[in-house]
Amino acid sequence: MSDEAKNTGRVEAFSDGVFAIAITLLVLELKVPPGPFEGPHALFRELASEHFFSSYLAFFLSFVSILVMWVNHHRIFTLVWRVDDAFLYWNGLLLLFVTFVPFPTSLLAEHLTREAAKGAAAMYAGTALAIALAFTALWRHAIRDARCLAPNTEKEVADLSRQYRYGPAAYLVALGLSYFSAIASVGLCLLLVLVFAFRGFLGRR
Amino acid sequence: MSDEAKNTGRVEAFSDGVFAIAITLLVLELKVPPGPFEGPHALFRELASEHFFSSYLAFFLSFVSILVMWVNHHRIFTLVWRVDDAFLYWNGLLLLFVTFVPFPTSLLAEHLTREAAKGAAAMYAGTALAIALAFTALWRHAIRDARCLAPNTEKEVADLSRQYRYGPAAYLVALGLSYFSAIASVGLCLLLVLVFAFRGFLGRR
Amino acid sequence: MSDEAKNTGRVEAFSDGVFAIAITLLVLELKVPPGPFEGPHALFRELASEHFFSSYLAFFLSFVSILVMWVNHHRIFTLVWRVDDAFLYWNGLLLLFVTFVPFPTSLLAEHLTREAAKGAAAMYAGTALAIALAFTALWRHAIRDARCLAPNTEKEVADLSRQYRYGPAAYLVALGLSYFSAIASVGLCLLLVLVFAFRGFLGRR
Amino acid sequence: MSDEAKNTGRVEAFSDGVFAIAITLLVLELKVPPGPFEGPHALFRELASEHFFSSYLAFFLSFVSILVMWVNHHRIFTLVWRVDDAFLYWNGLLLLFVTFVPFPTSLLAEHLTREAAKGAAAMYAGTALAIALAFTALWRHAIRDARCLAPNTEKEVADLSRQYRYGPAAYLVALGLSYFSAIASVGLCLLLVLVFAFRGFLGRR
Repeated sequence: MSDEAKNTGRVEAFSDGVFAIAITLLVLELKVPPGPFEGPHALFRELASEHFFSSYLAFFLSFVSILVMWVNHHRIFTLVWRVDDAFLYWNGLLLLFVTFVPFPTSLLAEHLTREAAKGAAAMYAGTALAIALAFTALWRHAIRDARCLAPNTEKEVADLSRQYRYGPAAYLVALGLSYFSAIASVGLCLLLVLVFAFRGFLGRR
Repeated sequence: MSDEAKNTGRVEAFSDGVFAIAITLLVLELKVPPGPFEGPHALFRELASEHFFSSYLAFFLSFVSILVMWVNHHRIFTLVWRVDDAFLYWNGLLLLFVTFVPFPTSLLAEHLTREAAKGAAAMYAGTALAIALAFTALWRHAIRDARCLAPNTEKEVADLSRQYRYGPAAYLVALGLSYFSAIASVGLCLLLVLVFAFRGFLGRR
Repeated sequence: MSDEAKNTGRVEAFSDGVFAIAITLLVLELKVPPGPFEGPHALFRELASEHFFSSYLAFFLSFVSILVMWVNHHRIFTLVWRVDDAFLYWNGLLLLFVTFVPFPTSLLAEHLTREAAKGAAAMYAGTALAIALAFTALWRHAIRDARCLAPNTEKEVADLSRQYRYGPAAYLVALGLSYFSAIASVGLCLLLVLVFAFRGFLGRR
Repeated sequence: MSDEAKNTGRVEAFSDGVFAIAITLLVLELKVPPGPFEGPHALFRELASEHFFSSYLAFFLSFVSILVMWVNHHRIFTLVWRVDDAFLYWNGLLLLFVTFVPFPTSLLAEHLTREAAKGAAAMYAGTALAIALAFTALWRHAIRDARCLAPNTEKEVADLSRQYRYGPAAYLVALGLSYFSAIASVGLCLLLVLVFAFRGFLGRR
């Protein structure tokens, strides 16, 4: 039992490391415009251009998303006391998608203002959907056996289960929206992550 | 209560990871000159050129800045014992700006010796100002409720509050200076971070 | 003795950091196609092309491989309680190969669908073989002195020893296969890592 | 006093993070040859070329160097129990040079087989010298006050002091050698780091 607790600690630490690195690598997507520029105003015009704005948006969206994922991951581990092999598989699948995030982020930054915008938005929403599904699978597996959960947490478990019920459906809508409008799809992703951020943090009470 | 303490520990560990990664990614901004060079002297001339000097300066300035931020962040957490949701938001905002630092650093390295120097300096000082404001907001929120602070730390809290009073104003001056001179603006940023480094370390006594 | 335990802890933490960073750096191999694309379908065609598929495959294969290595590394450290200098050397050699993994991964992603595919597959299988040998050497050294092992773990030690007996031989076959077919060699690597994943996790029972 | 111990712990953790990230970033210096290649043999010829060999050498040399630095850093912290502000400054200076290592490593990889080889070797040896000096300064400061050291460690302290006496002088010779021969300078750096590796590990007994 004490050995199990130790194993959980190391899985948490490894996962935390992956989240912290993935969130910090996002900045590599922001490329310095090579210039030459005639003066500071020309540089500002470039940095405030539509194309750069999509880079900032992608950076911000992915930063908040990974931060919210980390908070959610942390929250799961405050409720789960014992992990089995299948739990480790689902956690591995989740981390696979989390480390993948910088790629659709760069794709969005590069293509949101161009002809292939809907494709980039679909790729982004699809990755978010995959992460939502991995979180749901991880959580469903965790609550299958009440002996694996911390005692006296029925209410918190029910709260979190409700959140996981809506997550995948909401990101499926975002994926569908990308067929009609890239901006609408990305906007819904942004809205969702802000809602989850506030619900997630507030839910900790 | 003991649960709160544990949560703080994990927020600290995650933040530490982000600081450590952001500070180590700065070196990626230093690009190896491709050459060919006629001999070692030609390589040295390139590595000692004005353009490379601005890369070293940007690397050094951002390294010391992030190190000082980490020390300050650490210092806040020695005084704060309990965190609420809003504290986590402000901490998230702070980390957002910290992970952003490599971008204005690269911008400064690339453009400090060229026509758009003032624009790069403004971007750099603006990021520093945003970080100073995020630190101030985090700190103001933390001290709102004395029950969240460690006992018998009134003097240290007052010391830190004084420091946070001047930080944003000083970086606002650096931002304004960039309109007149990129070097003056960057020089003030460097001066400020050295002052904060020595005051921050000394203030730990 | 308690001092030895502390040393092991820090070696584990450093190794964990290296594993977490190496696994997260893999995504940098996925390059955003610069375009321009006529529309989302053109982008999708590119992202679903044979060349991109080899990038995803290399990313997935290396992600799972490093995750399995981390689990194995963790498993070794649950059985080993005391480390000596030679153990640290072998661990250092293992980490050298682990940090190297992103390079053959990029090589495979770039060349698997082109003329030099067999060369890229050989490089990948060769790296996997080197890691398997380093793990075997680390493990053989660890079990030389029963006093360095946790008590009452004879069965687990025997299990792990059996696994390490087959690992290097299997990767040697993968290396040999690359002479005939790149796909067969990479396929065997993928099969092996999935087998080790399931045996490794299941073996923890 | 217990508060001091806690502070040391966080400085160690932050430093460990920086070491682990710096050592893992080294692989980014290895660039995949873009091709096209006529077949696997053409790729192998490229990967076994003199130019690639210098990349492997630089990767290996810097990997072992940073690993040895980490072991030394760890060793210092097993002997030092209390840190003051100046110690933190010296540690910060040391980390500044450590995070810088990937740059001279890339420089060496790119230029060791070309006309500017001596320049790249000088830059590399110079960085190693700076690190040796920073270690010496950190150590000299640490042993100034015996009350900051762990009790009953006089012999180990004397051992380490002896090592730090020769380090900077040896790297100064390596720097001087680069004026005559890049290979001799890099060879001496490699010899030194292997000697320090074995002495460092053995010295732990």
